[in-house]
Amino acid sequence: MTGTLYGLGVGPGDPELITLKAHRILTASRVVAYPAPDSGPSFAREIVAEYIGSKVEEIPIVIPMKPQRFPAQEIYDRAAVAIAAHLDKGADVVVLCEGDPFFFGSFMYLYARLNKTYRVEVVPGVSSLMACAAAFGRPLAARNDVLTVIPAPLERDQLKRELMATDAAAIIKIGRHFDKVYSVLAELDLLERAGYVERASLPNQKVVRLAQAKLEGAPYFSMILVYRGGESWMN
Amino acid sequence: MTGTLYGLGVGPGDPELITLKAHRILTASRVVAYPAPDSGPSFAREIVAEYIGSKVEEIPIVIPMKPQRFPAQEIYDRAAVAIAAHLDKGADVVVLCEGDPFFFGSFMYLYARLNKTYRVEVVPGVSSLMACAAAFGRPLAARNDVLTVIPAPLERDQLKRELMATDAAAIIKIGRHFDKVYSVLAELDLLERAGYVERASLPNQKVVRLAQAKLEGAPYFSMILVYRGGESWMN
Repeated sequence: MTGTLYGLGVGPGDPELITLKAHRILTASRVVAYPAPDSGPSFAREIVAEYIGSKVEEIPIVIPMKPQRFPAQEIYDRAAVAIAAHLDKGADVVVLCEGDPFFFGSFMYLYARLNKTYRVEVVPGVSSLMACAAAFGRPLAARNDVLTVIPAPLERDQLKRELMATDAAAIIKIGRHFDKVYSVLAELDLLERAGYVERASLPNQKVVRLAQAKLEGAPYFSMILVYRGGESWMN
Repeated sequence: MTGTLYGLGVGPGDPELITLKAHRILTASRVVAYPAPDSGPSFAREIVAEYIGSKVEEIPIVIPMKPQRFPAQEIYDRAAVAIAAHLDKGADVVVLCEGDPFFFGSFMYLYARLNKTYRVEVVPGVSSLMACAAAFGRPLAARNDVLTVIPAPLERDQLKRELMATDAAAIIKIGRHFDKVYSVLAELDLLERAGYVERASLPNQKVVRLAQAKLEGAPYFSMILVYRGGESWMN
């Protein structure tokens, strides 16, 4: 009997925003893997650190910070081999995933490598999408609104097209793309309808209306929510 | 001192998919409100029934099933008054919200009425969006994909336009719009790239590839996920 691989959504940052199910599986687990930068702590691990037992075997999946040197294939190949060794021995393995495992996460790379051979269960988590809306105090979308999730690394023209074609948008992966996104929103006269949220649900959470924002750069874990539909949701 | 209004995301259906935070707040609460149909049980209440104490005062917000008779304004006006009476006495009030409170939910109508006068906290929940992706065993979106959430009640032409313009889509609120959505996907040759999920995370969950689906109608709580981007996420 081989073990089960769990893709475990650990939520947006507040340790209390993991699900009862994720908590049950994690506190019973003996092997825990997670993405980690090449220096500094793993954010996914930090979120749930208090739920990881002292005798747990940990498998950090180290992702170098410099994107141009990113041998992603190799890293996930090796991580899949390390995880499979435990599964083959009958041990379950938990992979910690920031937010939700299947919402733009890196878990998909392990899933693709292991899903055909092993039993995999994905435990959905609270996504930063929902945590940012809660932090900003404004619904993501209402009624028959179209909601578009737009990665900030897209080119300026595409960003503009996407924003013009939707009722509501969540622009994710802001980071070093902040200036570009800001200027597109300014050009479309949407600054008054945009909110910026950084580190949603964490003690150092930051929430500002973009029109009033004085920001110098943004971290990777930030998001801009845009609501073009006016105040229709208020009734 | 007035009480706090909590918009509590209770997740997609599995009682274990509520967060530790929602569980803590709910098990300590004395006044619980929730949307309910005019006959039959409230889905939001059913999800967390085991966490509601016997001495809790319940406020069902009855939404008539026939949309044409929907005096929504009045219903939420009255519910807001009933909730405010408790808040004024210093009691906290929890409003149960299926999935996440700010993802196309009806909580926004209470929020709009009470947010200016009372302290309101929104506790984000696991959305059906993430639960359906987990059930279907396929990421919602990857890398720099654009993900569009499309309400099925939209007109045929707009559905088509939205689907043609995105990398990945989640079509929500399927219900009686199933035939229309199916025929649009067939016309765009996307049936092979679409998955149908009904009652995600519940014991009677149903998951099928749309190309193989033999469905006669769909419940309101169903979703179709479309991935146009091919297999790029597999590596």
